[in-house]
Amino acid sequence: MYQRLHPLPKKAFPWFIETQLQWTDSDLYGHLNNVSYLAYFDTALNMALVEHGALDPTPSGQGPIGLVVQNGAQFFAEVAFPSRLHIGVRVESIGRSSLTWGFGLFARDAALCAARGYFVHVYVDRDTRRPQPLGPSLSRCAEALFVDPTSDPATGQ
Amino acid sequence: MYQRLHPLPKKAFPWFIETQLQWTDSDLYGHLNNVSYLAYFDTALNMALVEHGALDPTPSGQGPIGLVVQNGAQFFAEVAFPSRLHIGVRVESIGRSSLTWGFGLFARDAALCAARGYFVHVYVDRDTRRPQPLGPSLSRCAEALFVDPTSDPATGQ
Amino acid sequence: MYQRLHPLPKKAFPWFIETQLQWTDSDLYGHLNNVSYLAYFDTALNMALVEHGALDPTPSGQGPIGLVVQNGAQFFAEVAFPSRLHIGVRVESIGRSSLTWGFGLFARDAALCAARGYFVHVYVDRDTRRPQPLGPSLSRCAEALFVDPTSDPATGQ
Amino acid sequence: MYQRLHPLPKKAFPWFIETQLQWTDSDLYGHLNNVSYLAYFDTALNMALVEHGALDPTPSGQGPIGLVVQNGAQFFAEVAFPSRLHIGVRVESIGRSSLTWGFGLFARDAALCAARGYFVHVYVDRDTRRPQPLGPSLSRCAEALFVDPTSDPATGQ
Repeated sequence: MYQRLHPLPKKAFPWFIETQLQWTDSDLYGHLNNVSYLAYFDTALNMALVEHGALDPTPSGQGPIGLVVQNGAQFFAEVAFPSRLHIGVRVESIGRSSLTWGFGLFARDAALCAARGYFVHVYVDRDTRRPQPLGPSLSRCAEALFVDPTSDPATGQ
Repeated sequence: MYQRLHPLPKKAFPWFIETQLQWTDSDLYGHLNNVSYLAYFDTALNMALVEHGALDPTPSGQGPIGLVVQNGAQFFAEVAFPSRLHIGVRVESIGRSSLTWGFGLFARDAALCAARGYFVHVYVDRDTRRPQPLGPSLSRCAEALFVDPTSDPATGQ
Repeated sequence: MYQRLHPLPKKAFPWFIETQLQWTDSDLYGHLNNVSYLAYFDTALNMALVEHGALDPTPSGQGPIGLVVQNGAQFFAEVAFPSRLHIGVRVESIGRSSLTWGFGLFARDAALCAARGYFVHVYVDRDTRRPQPLGPSLSRCAEALFVDPTSDPATGQ
Repeated sequence: MYQRLHPLPKKAFPWFIETQLQWTDSDLYGHLNNVSYLAYFDTALNMALVEHGALDPTPSGQGPIGLVVQNGAQFFAEVAFPSRLHIGVRVESIGRSSLTWGFGLFARDAALCAARGYFVHVYVDRDTRRPQPLGPSLSRCAEALFVDPTSDPATGQ
């Protein structure tokens, strides 16, 4: 019923963050809880925005903020503590006031991601929360990180 | 690119939990963070399993456990602290060893849900983590909570 | 080396919230993770402030906010999913611009709390983050919730 | 009423992890939530155990596990997204079946920690949850990370 994704290699992502799996993100089943993967994606997305000059998250920051209108993930392998994590980030489609972000979470040196995810961001005025067209900094960020998903290598499980 | 959902009223869900929005689940933007909605869905799903006799989450528990292979959510309205939350739960499709769960998160007395979500659970042996056919307790639980999504009222925004 | 607390009964607390243990707050050891207890305390503290008219957490809110300068907890019993939680709240000491809050987390119908905690809040101007004397609404809230810890029943384990 | 700690420099800690501040760990006040600091401490503690051969966190792991009987933190400076975090770890006292762990959280290149914390761990049998004397691997880990807190440099604020 819901769209299926397939695992991707690191080369499908143009930009990464590296971080450490948190102990508290494992659940009763001894593995990284499914919901917590999306917290790593949210961090990677916002670091990509900040490091590309497209978001100032400080209280005095100006410019639009991104509200998530849709998110989701698909899981291919379990991840367990402790592990270094590499989170790949890309922009999969560019709308008038929205971006679709794609993510891959890689544990250590795995060839394929343990999970993929996506977030649809609508950019809004910080105060009125009304959608705004992408300005120059968001457009530059989106272009720098854009990967056409139709060019993905076929690695279907 | 990714499938869109529309908001639903409470009557679209046969079973609910009630809980309290956690202070730490709000983010820099002053609202419930998008990822945290899925944590409430995960709680609701596992309480539905436990209360229908289909999961024993204790260390000595027997029987299959559900691994999430796909999740996702769509967001219609912001939710802010403090708020009582009502999480509606239903089963949207029944497979041989899997169930698709649907959720709606309602803040206080809202007529329509602030967000919808879904989790696809594959039921596996607790030790081998190999998929198993749904046994009697999971089948009973699924039938008790099943709602055919094609019968949803049209409330599209 | 660090100060020890002993478990308390419900009557040691003048005010409570009731909530649901989140699935994601359990860790690898199959119980509520020690850190997550403090998230429930933070929620209870902020609900106590809001419901006593001493905090407006909305973006347009006025008046001081509380910054935590110290927190801590002591654990007496494990808590496991699923469980209703009752979080008791009290004010243990009242300073010029600070309050020391005390908490007890009770699982279901337990006679004694599974854990106790405390937060020291300094109240500051929302913008300058400089400490401010407690105003009338914070003082009223503090007096309504004050319990002298030296009057605690002796229940030491 | 509760014991006060003072901020420490990096040299007060013999061992560190480095990680990335998670977006979802900031709260309504635009800074790292007080509770989330303890989640970073929990990760650092468990990585120290694993990397010193004193904990096997996998389902088939043998040997004792540490249960937290007391935790706490003191906060000296706010930390905001995005930031690399360095978490310093040390053992502050060694008991028969318990260890007191001390932590310092450093944002980027700060000379002094933004927060300190402590966890008291009692080591128990994985199944019976009865306390056990520290075995050879825990004792070696504790000795490698031990720092006598009475030798701390005086940096009181």
